[in-house]
Amino acid sequence: MKREKPKYMQIIDAAVIVIAENGYHGSQVAKIAKQAGVADGTIYLYFKNKDDILISVFKEKMGVFIERLREIAHRPISTEEKLYELVKNHYTILQNDHHLAIVTQLELRQTRKPLRTKISDILREYLSLYDYILKEGIENGVLKDSIDIRLLRQAIFGMIDETSTSWVMTGQKHNLVSLTDEVHQLILHGLKK
Amino acid sequence: MKREKPKYMQIIDAAVIVIAENGYHGSQVAKIAKQAGVADGTIYLYFKNKDDILISVFKEKMGVFIERLREIAHRPISTEEKLYELVKNHYTILQNDHHLAIVTQLELRQTRKPLRTKISDILREYLSLYDYILKEGIENGVLKDSIDIRLLRQAIFGMIDETSTSWVMTGQKHNLVSLTDEVHQLILHGLKK
Ligand SMILES: CCCCCCCCCCCCCCCCCC(=O)SCCNC(=O)CCNC(=O)[C@H](O)C(C)(C)COP(=O)(O)OP(=O)(O)OC[C@H]1O[C@@H](n2cnc3c(N)ncnc32)[C@H](O)[C@@H]1OP(=O)(O)O
Ligand SMILES: CCCCCCCCCCCCCCCCCC(=O)SCCNC(=O)CCNC(=O)[C@H](O)C(C)(C)COP(=O)(O)OP(=O)(O)OC[C@H]1O[C@@H](n2cnc3c(N)ncnc32)[C@H](O)[C@@H]1OP(=O)(O)O
Repeated sequence: MKREKPKYMQIIDAAVIVIAENGYHGSQVAKIAKQAGVADGTIYLYFKNKDDILISVFKEKMGVFIERLREIAHRPISTEEKLYELVKNHYTILQNDHHLAIVTQLELRQTRKPLRTKISDILREYLSLYDYILKEGIENGVLKDSIDIRLLRQAIFGMIDETSTSWVMTGQKHNLVSLTDEVHQLILHGLKK
Repeated sequence: MKREKPKYMQIIDAAVIVIAENGYHGSQVAKIAKQAGVADGTIYLYFKNKDDILISVFKEKMGVFIERLREIAHRPISTEEKLYELVKNHYTILQNDHHLAIVTQLELRQTRKPLRTKISDILREYLSLYDYILKEGIENGVLKDSIDIRLLRQAIFGMIDETSTSWVMTGQKHNLVSLTDEVHQLILHGLKK
């Protein structure tokens, strides 16, 4: 497996920094190689091209995150608690890594179709955990059964994602993780007094 | 004023179609000129470059939309009704124009900083109407006063925006406008039974 080779993860981690600092367009493969401390040619032993690097970055980092979330989804805790952990963990991974947050909220929003399709495929795996938690909550009578589960999933992800993007766009100044309580309130009970 | 010249709006409308069909990257100015039925040189009488066309498209289309929303925000109706109209109008403008929806949900998500800043400035004007409605709702005792208004604004926009993007990404197949009731329910009352 590629990822067992130490240089693979070294290049992935370097790519996050270079893409965050230079934008995806300005991140030549040579820059990523330099940051990783490997020869340009070494990159092509592991990756086909720059798009392949971006997809691999997302896949690797999301893979670890999805594992953590999957564990939470299967804990013997309430649906409310699972949703709380979902929001909190999402915010935490972004807040803990300045560069990762920029790449996730800005640079991964690529418009080219083939790239976008690959990004969506990885995102789908993450969002399927939302479906798992939501379905369980509906079956247990905790959540409303009158709203389409796809809509619930999109609405929750949309809230988390947009608050994260606003945080990145305004310079990562306020505390993102500390929004968890309020967002959790909103998800469960809405705005109405 | 530029926009009083008939060719200006003709180019704007052509750009929406060309960008939706070819992606921003594949939308050469010559293609937009051809679609608009004007000479290439004519474009440069109105626009500095392709980025200027994209920004102008967003500015013009949003300008009309913001006017409609501003009128709704000032109607003598309840906060709940204003929020309903906000969601419904947002979905309606996207659902009524296949090309505009693609440009808004995909092609406007540009990562280059200067472009992004200009797009954000226009978005800020739209979102200030959310703030107006939310503040009024809090003052009238209809909405919770325990949640930061910036967070409320981001959460509502996030729900609307993500449901719209999912609708575009899955091929504009389901009826977006008909999600209004469920989204309005979620915004006001949340997921909890
Ligand atoms: C062909 C086009 C046709 C269009 C036709 C119409 C179609 C329908 C409608 C279309 C919808 C629009 C779609 C737009 C698509 C393109 C744009 C996107 O990508 S959208 C998707 C991606 N989303 C985006 O791109 C939007 C990202 N957001 C932003 O860029 C900005 O929030 C802003 C520009 C919207 C406002 O910025 P600003 O004026 O600065 O005001 P803020 O209040 O935000 O911040 C003020 C201060 O408050 C701090 N603070 C904030 N929140 C919190 C909090 N929760 N807790 C605590 N603190 C918080 C913050 O740190 C700051 O601190 P400081 O500086 O004072 O110390
Ligand atoms: C450096 C990286 C490090 C990452 C580390 C970890 C960091 C923390 C976490 C990060 C978060 C992830 C950020 C990702 C950023 C990049 C991606 C974005 O741009 S995200 C921001 C932008 N967002 C996006 O890019 C996501 C956009 N969404 C999508 O692309 C897709 O929804 C999908 C791929 C997620 C699932 O697709 P699919 O598997 O197809 O499943 P569906 O269920 O959706 O659809 C199935 C069917 O249901 C129909 N239907 C759907 N909804 C409704 C409804 N409400 N009512 C009625 N019907 C509805 C639909 O028409 C379809 O019909 P048919 O075909 O069966 O006839």
